[in-house]
Amino acid sequence: MSIAASEDLSARLMRALGDCAAMVTEYMDGAIARAGGPSPRLAAAMRHAALAGGKRLRPFLVIESAALFGVARTAALPAAAALECVHCYSLVHDDLPAMDDDDLRRGQPTVHRAFDEATAILAGDGLLTLAFEILAREDAGPDAHARIALVAGLARAAGAGGMVGGQMLDLAAEGRFAAAGRGAATAGDIEHLQALKTGALLHYACEAGAVLGGASAAERASLETYARAIGRAFQIADDLLDVEGDAGEVGKAVGKDAAAGKATLVDLMGVPGARAELARLVEEARAALAGFGSKATLLAEAANFIANRRN
Amino acid sequence: MSIAASEDLSARLMRALGDCAAMVTEYMDGAIARAGGPSPRLAAAMRHAALAGGKRLRPFLVIESAALFGVARTAALPAAAALECVHCYSLVHDDLPAMDDDDLRRGQPTVHRAFDEATAILAGDGLLTLAFEILAREDAGPDAHARIALVAGLARAAGAGGMVGGQMLDLAAEGRFAAAGRGAATAGDIEHLQALKTGALLHYACEAGAVLGGASAAERASLETYARAIGRAFQIADDLLDVEGDAGEVGKAVGKDAAAGKATLVDLMGVPGARAELARLVEEARAALAGFGSKATLLAEAANFIANRRN
Repeated sequence: MSIAASEDLSARLMRALGDCAAMVTEYMDGAIARAGGPSPRLAAAMRHAALAGGKRLRPFLVIESAALFGVARTAALPAAAALECVHCYSLVHDDLPAMDDDDLRRGQPTVHRAFDEATAILAGDGLLTLAFEILAREDAGPDAHARIALVAGLARAAGAGGMVGGQMLDLAAEGRFAAAGRGAATAGDIEHLQALKTGALLHYACEAGAVLGGASAAERASLETYARAIGRAFQIADDLLDVEGDAGEVGKAVGKDAAAGKATLVDLMGVPGARAELARLVEEARAALAGFGSKATLLAEAANFIANRRN
Repeated sequence: MSIAASEDLSARLMRALGDCAAMVTEYMDGAIARAGGPSPRLAAAMRHAALAGGKRLRPFLVIESAALFGVARTAALPAAAALECVHCYSLVHDDLPAMDDDDLRRGQPTVHRAFDEATAILAGDGLLTLAFEILAREDAGPDAHARIALVAGLARAAGAGGMVGGQMLDLAAEGRFAAAGRGAATAGDIEHLQALKTGALLHYACEAGAVLGGASAAERASLETYARAIGRAFQIADDLLDVEGDAGEVGKAVGKDAAAGKATLVDLMGVPGARAELARLVEEARAALAGFGSKATLLAEAANFIANRRN
């Protein structure tokens, strides 16, 4: 591909991401208003957590995966927004003083800094619950079977066997618990942890598209390969940003892994090794999409974007 | 009814509650094992939160409400266990230092005392998510429509417009937030708060039974009246225990409302007034069940139990 064509594609992806972000933010805004609740403070904290920026990468993956099967963006939007609610809740709880103790998220004060800890805990709980409320709505899937499949998949991806389990392993990797045996992490351990902590939701994003689109088993398998590759790329890119990034640009504190004494894949592979692995994963992700032809152009470009993002 | 017959009924209820508790505990144990997760510490914290006692009143209400329509106990068990997961998660998060800061729950150390705060936050998140994973399983309802209705109802009852919203109002009633205007609570405010904080899940218990049983609109309305009355009775009984109870018997700290400067209905009505209101609510609950005949005997007795419980 020529450099000009590649630049066009990158610009198309940025526009599509921006359009998706606007749609998802509007949908979440409406969903928080509908879920209502009697406490303006709680609603404000949920809005702070859910509406203040973010690339909306996971919703984009839902919408683009579903589009492979001809599903309209508006039809994929509730599932996309539900997933983003789960992502946002996880950030709120991860940032709490008892967890990662972060003051800054997306360039803004974290929820417990902008409000208080109790409000942050409840806002996170409210967003997690809202995700399932959204998936149970009539417009969330073509029929009750699809909606139940979306609920089952999201609960699996988000729960103790997925994201929450990965976060727990991550705390253990920081040596939080005396029994955990800090410092002995292998590449396999770190990959397992990250496959759960960040990979599970990225994987679900593509799974949701497959459910909405009624994908065949072979199509699902291709999307799974893609999802696994971008999940790994996402985490390696994140680790690189933690080593090399600038807090102002990244929008959150950097250098935290080293400060926490936490082993990352970048430690084990070195920066050049990590960059080579990223390139390999992008190729793997793109190859997995080959069968979908030109409908998968933006998803393929998204793999590039994930590997090379600056924040 | 003679005293002897009444004693028989009370004994029958205790036996039925005990049987239900055993079934639900076994189901939750299996569900936590299935949801697996790679962290033994997280699983242990979830088990501590979910399996260490409790009356299992909400699951009992699901099972007995469903039984009004001839639904077998085993068929109502997943929905019953899912609801109990939500109840248990809410206790874990409510007990956190940033919330009610309790050391004791059901006579045991709270999860953040037995483990640590981060683990308690994640164990709560894991149990909330597990509830929806359970409801999405094939055996959770007669068909996908029923399962989606159960998901929708639970999410509504548990979220910002239900339990989480009520908990937020409760924190505000304690004067936690400068803007909240402490001390001006009316009986209407307190009832609204409590209808959300504890009433919403009790209400859902009966709603779940109606969904599983395919109840008519009139039958649903009767169960709703029952649920509203026992919800109010539950809270007044709780407030009385906080005033009059003994920590050893109650299994958690008492006198906390007064210490927090929190107005309760017992403050507004006085102890004799609260007792009279309890008696009225029990009669209202029992009357709502009249149309179900003898099938509702245990639910009617449960209203008594809720109003007069000692812990």
